[in-house]
Amino acid sequence: MRNIIIASTSTIHGSGYLEYITDELNVFFKQANTILFVPYARPGGISHNDYTAIARTAFSKIGKTIKGIHEYDNPIDAVKQAEGIFIGGGNTFVLTNQLHKNNLIDTLKYCVNNGTPYLGTSAGSNICGLTIKTTNDMPIVYPPSFNALGLVPFNINPHYLNPDTSSTHMGETRETRITEFHHYNTPPVIGLREGSWLLVKDSSIILKGDLTARIFEYNQAPYEIKPGTELNTMK
Amino acid sequence: MRNIIIASTSTIHGSGYLEYITDELNVFFKQANTILFVPYARPGGISHNDYTAIARTAFSKIGKTIKGIHEYDNPIDAVKQAEGIFIGGGNTFVLTNQLHKNNLIDTLKYCVNNGTPYLGTSAGSNICGLTIKTTNDMPIVYPPSFNALGLVPFNINPHYLNPDTSSTHMGETRETRITEFHHYNTPPVIGLREGSWLLVKDSSIILKGDLTARIFEYNQAPYEIKPGTELNTMK
Repeated sequence: MRNIIIASTSTIHGSGYLEYITDELNVFFKQANTILFVPYARPGGISHNDYTAIARTAFSKIGKTIKGIHEYDNPIDAVKQAEGIFIGGGNTFVLTNQLHKNNLIDTLKYCVNNGTPYLGTSAGSNICGLTIKTTNDMPIVYPPSFNALGLVPFNINPHYLNPDTSSTHMGETRETRITEFHHYNTPPVIGLREGSWLLVKDSSIILKGDLTARIFEYNQAPYEIKPGTELNTMK
Repeated sequence: MRNIIIASTSTIHGSGYLEYITDELNVFFKQANTILFVPYARPGGISHNDYTAIARTAFSKIGKTIKGIHEYDNPIDAVKQAEGIFIGGGNTFVLTNQLHKNNLIDTLKYCVNNGTPYLGTSAGSNICGLTIKTTNDMPIVYPPSFNALGLVPFNINPHYLNPDTSSTHMGETRETRITEFHHYNTPPVIGLREGSWLLVKDSSIILKGDLTARIFEYNQAPYEIKPGTELNTMK
């Protein structure tokens, strides 16, 4: 039984860390007392310890203990033994690099596909897709590969934003960037707005939250889907 | 005698392609009748031919002929023979990948450092830095390396934007991303606003245009520099 939450963000504007999704997490992690936190994405360059403390505070509100993966001698064993896993946001290149460096990709894939509940936010959601080629982050380190966990058969674009029609800035819009992606790659891309998440139960993949998501399929005009839409036929 | 223009953008809001910098280009390329255009960055996935046509139209206004590098059998020879070179914007990963694939990095470096006038805009400016690790673009292809031409001893962040203090969006600001870069890398980063460029003459590197640029040095608070500032001691 697969149990995966792929969330656009950890934090929505005007609310605390994970606050918007606490009730959902309470149900989602009901079988887990201790959750393994992977702080590798280091938002703003924060240390593994400091980042783990933030996750610890949030999860203490629903009575869960958090252990940082860096506290274990063997990170592969830490993943294998985990009752639940949470990979937080930050820089997707840094996260992916560290997962490859510690040989964690295959173990994470195996454990999550065989039932360990997994929560990803932002960078931790990017890596649930086939590759990290649709991240918004800056490539500050060179990972050995852009391949990710492939827990879902498409790519994720977290923090998805509509083009700002009032802007005079000439940088590419998010939509243009994803269009460029499809000149070199064929998998669909799910643009997940802040406050949205995908809930994966076995082979079902449902859009949750209040907002629509934007779907980019190869050679098709992008379109919106409503919360509650089943995405398991998308690939 | 090195002659390099490293421009934040090709186009400023409300003006045509390269229009804001045409007078400067007229002087800069005065010795060149034909300019070699490198369309590899393919903005929006546009074809090499279509992109070259856009550059051709702009340069025809100052009486220059444009040849696309893809029109040559041997791109290395095309660079060696060029009277002037222009690499346009688009996706920095696609551009870098293609330059490495065609073994053009060393030849470009050699020719530009030995006097071939070079104009870069956006992605074509990113590659003038040490690496492409401070690009804003999406990593839609996996290049064999993030190393770039290193024509200047720092990194470039084109289309630099101030943090939007009115935004409720929780994605990282440009400044946060560059701060993260400095957790893993030590070279300075020059945040070049739209309409700004660096003019390199031999060892001199001067900020041009109307706006200040934002400088990010390792372990220092970011600061602004005025147009006319000499950057040749920065490294």
